[in-house]
Amino acid sequence: MSEQMYTMKEAMLYSQRIAQLSKALWKAVEKDWQQWIKPYDLNINEHHILWISYHSQGASISDVAKFGVMHVSTAFNFSKKLEVRGLLSFSKREDDKRNTYIELTEKGEELLIDMIEHYHDSQHSVIESSLPLKDLYGRFPEFMEVMAVIRNIYGDDFMEIFEHSFKNIDQIFDEKIGNIKPTVKDKAK
Amino acid sequence: MSEQMYTMKEAMLYSQRIAQLSKALWKAVEKDWQQWIKPYDLNINEHHILWISYHSQGASISDVAKFGVMHVSTAFNFSKKLEVRGLLSFSKREDDKRNTYIELTEKGEELLIDMIEHYHDSQHSVIESSLPLKDLYGRFPEFMEVMAVIRNIYGDDFMEIFEHSFKNIDQIFDEKIGNIKPTVKDKAK
Repeated sequence: MSEQMYTMKEAMLYSQRIAQLSKALWKAVEKDWQQWIKPYDLNINEHHILWISYHSQGASISDVAKFGVMHVSTAFNFSKKLEVRGLLSFSKREDDKRNTYIELTEKGEELLIDMIEHYHDSQHSVIESSLPLKDLYGRFPEFMEVMAVIRNIYGDDFMEIFEHSFKNIDQIFDEKIGNIKPTVKDKAK
Repeated sequence: MSEQMYTMKEAMLYSQRIAQLSKALWKAVEKDWQQWIKPYDLNINEHHILWISYHSQGASISDVAKFGVMHVSTAFNFSKKLEVRGLLSFSKREDDKRNTYIELTEKGEELLIDMIEHYHDSQHSVIESSLPLKDLYGRFPEFMEVMAVIRNIYGDDFMEIFEHSFKNIDQIFDEKIGNIKPTVKDKAK
């Protein structure tokens, strides 16, 4: 509980910085994302729900909403559509009757793996634009300052799912994707 | 022009990181922004256009669109509405007949100054959540990694307007806002 001081000018400068940067970054991410999923008849919310279910294995609708930063009703309604398409299944748990859990079906998992295999069919300007930093750092940037701000806004829960999703992607790649396709891509820039 | 190498797993992990962080950050920024401008009967695009005009003094519609990361038609249509409300004025330049330039009217400027004065009437979760970093660093974080990625995506033009807007905020505060209201705010956290 420290005494904080900041001037209105500092607040305005910082708010200008973070508003511009976060909007510009998200719009670029969104554009890449839309181009990637375009051939699959999914919108970003739908793909995000599939993606979170894939990487969190047995998430509740409210986990998906929280981690996907969408309203619970949005998460629920799009999950229903994905269930109708046979990509997700709903379940209740014996020890937790209040929450609805979703899980990818085999068809849903096949779709996601297919999408990963075709990842490089579309342009990913954000990844390409991060390669100079990767060259400098030896790895992609981690945005620790952004993570610290996000942790304070959304709480430790959010960061736990976030960190967990990385472990899961790691594991999934080692177990499944690695066998399907060569994982090293030569990229001339 | 170096030869870049990254694995599909690296791309997926990075894309997961940047998609989650940028979405979560932008949604938080958007929420704070909406609460701030709610009493003024403006939407985010409209306020963003006023804000950019204020800080870039004599921007063209296409500059506003570029820097505001919105379609030119969005920038134009909302600017028209702001003109009808007497907050903006349109002009052409002798040396550049193709572009339309916009400028804040006196009423527009008064509105923005009024909004700055009432900045702390609403909650700014992003600023509050950045205070621990400010405590550590002695100033608000600058997100240099994000800036490097944005520079590569949107180009030097974008960053020039970005940097210019800071100088302008600086100047405006020293000249105008500083006299209106004490600029130091005690903030107990």
